[in-house]
Amino acid sequence: MARLIDTTGYLIAPDPGAQRLTREVAGTDQTGARTRTRVVEERPLTIYLNAQEIVTAMTIGDYPEYLALGFLRNQGMLRDAEAVTGVEYDAELEVVVVRTTSTTSYEEKLRKKTRTSGCAVGTVFGDMMEGLEGLTLSQTSLRTSDLYALSAVINRTPSLYLDAGAIHGSVLCQGDRPLVYMEDVGRHNAVDKIAGWMLSERVDGADKILYTTGRLTSEMVIKTAQMGIPVLASRSGFTAWGVEIARQVGLTLIGRLKGHRFLCLSGEERLIRDADPASIPDEDRAGRRKGAEE
Amino acid sequence: MARLIDTTGYLIAPDPGAQRLTREVAGTDQTGARTRTRVVEERPLTIYLNAQEIVTAMTIGDYPEYLALGFLRNQGMLRDAEAVTGVEYDAELEVVVVRTTSTTSYEEKLRKKTRTSGCAVGTVFGDMMEGLEGLTLSQTSLRTSDLYALSAVINRTPSLYLDAGAIHGSVLCQGDRPLVYMEDVGRHNAVDKIAGWMLSERVDGADKILYTTGRLTSEMVIKTAQMGIPVLASRSGFTAWGVEIARQVGLTLIGRLKGHRFLCLSGEERLIRDADPASIPDEDRAGRRKGAEE
Repeated sequence: MARLIDTTGYLIAPDPGAQRLTREVAGTDQTGARTRTRVVEERPLTIYLNAQEIVTAMTIGDYPEYLALGFLRNQGMLRDAEAVTGVEYDAELEVVVVRTTSTTSYEEKLRKKTRTSGCAVGTVFGDMMEGLEGLTLSQTSLRTSDLYALSAVINRTPSLYLDAGAIHGSVLCQGDRPLVYMEDVGRHNAVDKIAGWMLSERVDGADKILYTTGRLTSEMVIKTAQMGIPVLASRSGFTAWGVEIARQVGLTLIGRLKGHRFLCLSGEERLIRDADPASIPDEDRAGRRKGAEE
Repeated sequence: MARLIDTTGYLIAPDPGAQRLTREVAGTDQTGARTRTRVVEERPLTIYLNAQEIVTAMTIGDYPEYLALGFLRNQGMLRDAEAVTGVEYDAELEVVVVRTTSTTSYEEKLRKKTRTSGCAVGTVFGDMMEGLEGLTLSQTSLRTSDLYALSAVINRTPSLYLDAGAIHGSVLCQGDRPLVYMEDVGRHNAVDKIAGWMLSERVDGADKILYTTGRLTSEMVIKTAQMGIPVLASRSGFTAWGVEIARQVGLTLIGRLKGHRFLCLSGEERLIRDADPASIPDEDRAGRRKGAEE
């Protein structure tokens, strides 16, 4: 496991230096001393599907087009990229409009959905389950050596998290290589931005792994399955329904992945245990996330 | 600061032994050994205001009545307890119905709201800001000795978090005493359950402190202000808009509260620095939350 840790192989990596994403704020610390603290931005972004206003999301503000596309895709409102004729972002109005060829079926469904459900935890659950019946995830295997390598690279990648904290990260990976690392104030947004990128670039999920800093809830499992990705891994823990849905759809669910430790609560059959956990170092200071950004 | 740590003074404390809230799940660890892991439950709960379906929340499932009341209150759909004539929970249907005397004004507002906004991060933001104009929070002072004492007690209180992880906590406190400690899979739910309890018990927020395990986002700050609570403290970090709104409404915002450390980024004037940070021990293993349940 003496692999080099290369944090430069990303197609999209966080840009912690981007001025628009963080702000320095004055305050005091426990001793009363004046401090300057970098904190992440949080902005409203209103997503339209054609003329229909769908949602206002609180987001850090990067990749609004991917966020809009991915949100609509993961809500089952966009089935494929063919239908999308344009995505327009207006920074001043903080609005993204996704345009599709046929407007009627999606928008009628939406009107029904927003009227009957709304949402309290980020998604319209009933509708999200819809696309999962009959879904078969690819049987691509997962080497534990890749899992450890991914975890080490991701934790050392310069990020808004390491700089300012209070943010979630999701990373689309293939083998031992992280491809697209998105961050956002809501973990749903980070995943939706990845889904939007996949839709735009016509990237298939079948040979991918999704890594997230967040908990493995039903919602995260459903989104991952809808993206066609057979493996979801996280530093954090599980919910019972997250595990149950992962088993139903045959998704491999890895949690509490820190240093040499992890737990697999679903989809064990994809695991190839080619790494000796005893050879994996505990997380050192550089690799350890700052603790409970809960 | 040699205060005794008493974790028994709660009006409502977590009940980690409650069978309905967690489940044991079989899996494997990094060595391939079979494991049994306790994970938290996550259930849908549909909230009705009279005949109008408002939202389906994913929740751990305890205190559904408080969750419904608090959600509606924090969304500005219930202005006071007078209007509430009943709260009915049906465990089998996973439904709570909140009944009020006058139905028209709230429900008309709702129909408009759910049609135009929906939500992506847990709340209908535009409408939540509505109740904040002209709000004045009480100037109750905050002793740093109380802050440290609260943090020590809360972190040692038996909880679902310590047992099963992957859950958020919010605690309503007064002085150095935690009163009501709610946990839930979504931190919004934990806070909403506290708001529902306050509404039911007609508890005033003016002399209270709200402690949360979650990040200090705009939404958390708005909810706290709407509950009339002048101080919000967290183990986690800040977002820029959270800080900005806290300053606008004059709320004291304490973040990254761990061991002797904290940052105050708004409402410094309420702080009475009566504790010597050097006398506060670093978090020991018993007091440390398990890390990033993000």
